[in-house]
Amino acid sequence: MSAHPFDAAIALQPAGGGAFAGQTSPAYANFIGPYGGITAAQCLQAVLQHPERLGDPVAFTVNFAAAVADGPFELRPRAARTNRSTQHWIVEMVQGDEVVATATALTAVRRPTWGGHEAHKPEAPPPLEVKRTTRRGVAWLERYEMRFLLGMIPRDWDGGGVAESLSRLWVRDDPPRPLDFASLAALCDVFFPRIWLRRARQTPLGTVSMTVYFHATAAELAAAGEGFLLAQARGQGFGSGYFDHGGQLWSESGSLLATTHQVMYYKE
Amino acid sequence: MSAHPFDAAIALQPAGGGAFAGQTSPAYANFIGPYGGITAAQCLQAVLQHPERLGDPVAFTVNFAAAVADGPFELRPRAARTNRSTQHWIVEMVQGDEVVATATALTAVRRPTWGGHEAHKPEAPPPLEVKRTTRRGVAWLERYEMRFLLGMIPRDWDGGGVAESLSRLWVRDDPPRPLDFASLAALCDVFFPRIWLRRARQTPLGTVSMTVYFHATAAELAAAGEGFLLAQARGQGFGSGYFDHGGQLWSESGSLLATTHQVMYYKE
Repeated sequence: MSAHPFDAAIALQPAGGGAFAGQTSPAYANFIGPYGGITAAQCLQAVLQHPERLGDPVAFTVNFAAAVADGPFELRPRAARTNRSTQHWIVEMVQGDEVVATATALTAVRRPTWGGHEAHKPEAPPPLEVKRTTRRGVAWLERYEMRFLLGMIPRDWDGGGVAESLSRLWVRDDPPRPLDFASLAALCDVFFPRIWLRRARQTPLGTVSMTVYFHATAAELAAAGEGFLLAQARGQGFGSGYFDHGGQLWSESGSLLATTHQVMYYKE
Repeated sequence: MSAHPFDAAIALQPAGGGAFAGQTSPAYANFIGPYGGITAAQCLQAVLQHPERLGDPVAFTVNFAAAVADGPFELRPRAARTNRSTQHWIVEMVQGDEVVATATALTAVRRPTWGGHEAHKPEAPPPLEVKRTTRRGVAWLERYEMRFLLGMIPRDWDGGGVAESLSRLWVRDDPPRPLDFASLAALCDVFFPRIWLRRARQTPLGTVSMTVYFHATAAELAAAGEGFLLAQARGQGFGSGYFDHGGQLWSESGSLLATTHQVMYYKE
């Protein structure tokens, strides 16, 4: 039995001194280099796999410093601070002598407390009643089953655009795979660039920084299983070459699993 | 003429090897240790003051790894990657042998492009027509002039709470000071904990990670000057000891200056 493409993509081998060796995965290739979500998941996986890691991820920021070249990379996670129940990590992804990504992560032993999410899952028809969105183009799109509810990629790149960039979709790994922190981090990058909706025009762009806050407990991840997530994102500021969006991901049953933000570079 | 308290608080002296020495400021004291916003500003200032720094800040994440003790600290900024027009920084704030904060920053030479912010400034009466909010308690609250429009701190800590934690206020430095990237970063932490609104109950808590995306160009910062900013924040997920919020800050004239997110620890 061969591994799920996601597990193959995030497989890391100890490389001494707390570092790990990995390889880019053709299954998650984007236009240039890998899908950012898989790079994020690899950086997080280096923390998750570290023998000194304490607790589960709470906050995770990845900075895409350069195009990741197809081939091997090294991940260098380092616990900058370990407290009684929390830990702060710095990660560098290196190819040759060059840093291609940096990341920070907060992991923590989470305990039951009062809770009550304020970001509620929007009403949506069940995923299997929504038409599967046709996949086109790059490999990583084949790794996700997407069923768009609103804010789909423009049909015509006619420069028309819309005033609001809200997108909402059902999404899961393809083939389905039980959700975990690494795959949830990858799913947080699944949104196509908001500026495409705003402008209906393709310009060179790329994510430069993404943050994920994990709200799912290990039990909620297990309950989400291989099911669909409802994911939405909405743009905020667009100007001088950079724009950002904020997003949320819920389980099919309505648990808020993660909130996420990212800022993208664009040209023109 | 003595320096503005903010300038005094972020003053850093070169300490060799690209490091800087600084001191916590009693003027920005919080209940325990300093106001997180001033720690954030100090970390960013280490990048801004670095002789190799390229461009202006675009994305900035600070992780509060431990309580900062009153007294001296060292800041160690390092350019992990320098590209043609962008640069990725890793910063560590150290006291003694212990890391108390980590940060990453993306700086970039920003160029004019198409733009159009989607997060619009909400309608609000002019700042001077809104009653100044009474300041109580810790020192850092004296450093900001706040005029709340909605979502003020609960009057009674009776456990009542509300279902939605949106707050909106006019805010500026006190005494007024021309806005810059460091003071804007500090202002992004000005929101009291969203969980206080939700629960009307005080429990131990603290910010563990904050991200700021800068949308203001240098010209927009200059135009904002010493004026008020309209700031708002809204909670998202609350559970298992952590909650997050998303926020936006606009200039008085309506320019989106920054978007921000943070996750806080809480007990019980």
